[in-house]
Amino acid sequence: MKARVHITLKKGVLDPQGKAIAGALHGLGFDEISGARQGKFIELDLKDTDAAAAKARVEAMCQKLLANTVIENYTVEIA
Amino acid sequence: MKARVHITLKKGVLDPQGKAIAGALHGLGFDEISGARQGKFIELDLKDTDAAAAKARVEAMCQKLLANTVIENYTVEIA
Repeated sequence: MKARVHITLKKGVLDPQGKAIAGALHGLGFDEISGARQGKFIELDLKDTDAAAAKARVEAMCQKLLANTVIENYTVEIA
Repeated sequence: MKARVHITLKKGVLDPQGKAIAGALHGLGFDEISGARQGKFIELDLKDTDAAAAKARVEAMCQKLLANTVIENYTVEIA
């Protein structure tokens, strides 16, 4: 079973990496970009077979290690 | 219009960050993890209104800047 975790900065948190991406894309002539935000994407391979239990476990992993919940949001998809 | 870009390491490319995540999760007692891979997730705000044209432009951005296509794959979703 696989879990896909997205970790993104909360709204209002400064994202210098995203700003650098937007600036570099403008420099390359991609003027249609009005904003960019960079987050993390983590794919986990799990031995669990129960999707609901796996999701709860992965959310615990996000709380404890993967995300900094003060400044980051996370979403978990089980596939 | 928003574009969601996932950039992941190709199969076979060493992922030390993913290994570190798997090791740390084991250390916290999450023994069900058999592997972890870390990638990047970029959200772009676009001024375009045509989804097909926007997708082509974002793929060009991935080729030119966002992804290192020697070692990374990318996927683009337009929302």
